[in-house]
Amino acid sequence: MSGGVTAPRGFVAAGVHCGLKEEKPDLAIVASTTAAPAAVAGVFTRNRVQAAPVVYCRGVAAGGRARAIVANSGNANACTGDAGLADTRAMAARVAAALDFDAGHVLVASTGVIGVPLPMPTVLAGIDLAAAELGSDGGERAADAILTTDTRTKIEVEKVVLSGGQVTVGGIAKGAGMMAPDMATTLAFVTTDAKVAPAALDSALRRAVEPTFNSVTVDGDTSTNDSILVLANGAAGVEAASARDLERFTDALERLLGRLAVALIADGEGANRVVEVRVGGARTDAAARQVATTIANSPLVKTAYRTGQPNWGRVMGAIGRAGVEIVEQRIAIAVSAAEERVEVVHDGLGVTDDLAPLGRAMLADHSVLHVDLGLGSGRWTVWTCDLSEGYVRINASYIS
Amino acid sequence: MSGGVTAPRGFVAAGVHCGLKEEKPDLAIVASTTAAPAAVAGVFTRNRVQAAPVVYCRGVAAGGRARAIVANSGNANACTGDAGLADTRAMAARVAAALDFDAGHVLVASTGVIGVPLPMPTVLAGIDLAAAELGSDGGERAADAILTTDTRTKIEVEKVVLSGGQVTVGGIAKGAGMMAPDMATTLAFVTTDAKVAPAALDSALRRAVEPTFNSVTVDGDTSTNDSILVLANGAAGVEAASARDLERFTDALERLLGRLAVALIADGEGANRVVEVRVGGARTDAAARQVATTIANSPLVKTAYRTGQPNWGRVMGAIGRAGVEIVEQRIAIAVSAAEERVEVVHDGLGVTDDLAPLGRAMLADHSVLHVDLGLGSGRWTVWTCDLSEGYVRINASYIS
Repeated sequence: MSGGVTAPRGFVAAGVHCGLKEEKPDLAIVASTTAAPAAVAGVFTRNRVQAAPVVYCRGVAAGGRARAIVANSGNANACTGDAGLADTRAMAARVAAALDFDAGHVLVASTGVIGVPLPMPTVLAGIDLAAAELGSDGGERAADAILTTDTRTKIEVEKVVLSGGQVTVGGIAKGAGMMAPDMATTLAFVTTDAKVAPAALDSALRRAVEPTFNSVTVDGDTSTNDSILVLANGAAGVEAASARDLERFTDALERLLGRLAVALIADGEGANRVVEVRVGGARTDAAARQVATTIANSPLVKTAYRTGQPNWGRVMGAIGRAGVEIVEQRIAIAVSAAEERVEVVHDGLGVTDDLAPLGRAMLADHSVLHVDLGLGSGRWTVWTCDLSEGYVRINASYIS
Repeated sequence: MSGGVTAPRGFVAAGVHCGLKEEKPDLAIVASTTAAPAAVAGVFTRNRVQAAPVVYCRGVAAGGRARAIVANSGNANACTGDAGLADTRAMAARVAAALDFDAGHVLVASTGVIGVPLPMPTVLAGIDLAAAELGSDGGERAADAILTTDTRTKIEVEKVVLSGGQVTVGGIAKGAGMMAPDMATTLAFVTTDAKVAPAALDSALRRAVEPTFNSVTVDGDTSTNDSILVLANGAAGVEAASARDLERFTDALERLLGRLAVALIADGEGANRVVEVRVGGARTDAAARQVATTIANSPLVKTAYRTGQPNWGRVMGAIGRAGVEIVEQRIAIAVSAAEERVEVVHDGLGVTDDLAPLGRAMLADHSVLHVDLGLGSGRWTVWTCDLSEGYVRINASYIS
């Protein structure tokens, strides 16, 4: 996993402390070193309140080409009006000046407290500092500088062989408030040395995001700042152009984003374990997704996983209110972890008197909840984590 | 508030301990003593997984007449299949036998753990005990016997003068898990000595429920057992038949249900305060309701109210993801409590540098969050409470 965004050829990165946070690194730059600008694709929050950098990046991504990403933590630059948008543009311009790029080729991301103007002298000095430190060994430091309440960096690398040779995909991400996706900023930056046309890169990203980042949060990406950005600079000299190569590339991107997304869940605020909710037997994939999402967002199901209380009635209740057709008498529920699997509900009725193995399976680091609706072949998986006192403690004291 | 369901003329009640719980009262009966059966109306959970007593009560309520309600706590009789339905019928039959009623005139409600068969000898013995103790002073004990994790009884009485004279409406309720309405059983039993035709009673109840019980929970009533039952026995000799009298009666019922609903919130699991979310300036009432509900269900907004952290960005984020049209630059937010009112956001931008008064207003026992979308005259109010470590503690250890 060494490097993350600097694992693919032709990328440099840096992470520095500029002073938005008291001590921790708070400003990162990721840049391509190739002569031509890289292809870029992005997916952004669906929230109707959109932070200045999101508004700005949509425009850059629409152009299809970029050379660098600058990101700060500690301040979201959201709900900051026209002044906020001017600050975002100034960040891009400073990166462009430092690296001799076109300012229109610089992407900007921010995460942190909402509604407070960015202290621009601090940020601009940080950009100069980071630009001077850019290197092919800077991926880890960049991953560190984008964190907010995360307790660890998320860095992943994926290699895939296309018809023209091997390419590398590297990524870093930050999440933290994944228990309550309604306001947690999710940022993920992905680089690859494959050559991919902007339109193809956009399709690949949209497909790869659906079963990964969009399946660890309720409503898709719903903070004011959520952004996933991918840069493809072609430095490997290998192009993904054929349908088969694009399929392989998309799969690799999906595996990378999947690991990053589960890493976000595992490091969710106050999380003790990953709960994988696998729903099958639905009439359609969409119905399965709706049931899985409802279960995965039930505070009562989540708190049951806090202590391994075998409250399967809470799962039944969530299934029943998911808004899709169900037949109570066909529902089956099981819980598994590693080798242990416990059947809990069959034909809508409880089938286990000995609740101890169930409790143990629920308390594993990665526990899987299997729901079979018995109606069809639709299936979907959603990842969540337990809801703990730690979540409340963190969010009752953190201004975001 | 003396009596609750026994405050109106012609009603008796009892609450006893039969053994479903270790020590606390766990079985209640409320009965009309009039010669003719009372008019009955009910609203029930919309969850597609429905407990046996809900399935059974829908049938009784459809008939329009009833004489008594029997309710147990400690066991929800949900996900119990045909055997559960037979148990519900047996409960009704035992009440009917003890009181010489038609079994088709007895309503049944259950709340507690899901998926465990009722211990019927215990329940039936409890019914005999409660039937023997029925009295016009039994309202408080009945209110006590329906509680689960509630920390106090909810008892309200409302008097209203109709053209023919004064009538009384009395009610008891239980809630507790109102922070996470997805599985918390809400039960409310209301009695009145007004004479109201079943169809009119049903209309009055449906109207009165919408801005009260259906505005303290996300998805309306969504546990497997939620039920609100109203009995009108006519013992006051005053009929609500004219449009004007029915309007007055409905208003009285709405006031009573409103106080019971806010009492449930105030006693929500781990709750420290009631948060009243008033949204105005929406294009429609429905849009206002959607925004108010999204804010009131945001775990991040709720945790902010735990400690009075002035995280107004979390409110903006919830507004933005509510799924209705907004114009960020028109949004205004204020917080008030008692005499203090603090303007927080104007034209979509923060307007307060001194956050201390805001924190104080958020920490009041009853704090009001005002949101003005600036787009129209649609308005709605939703009540919620803060999300505390106590909520997690209760639900991580309670099997429901």
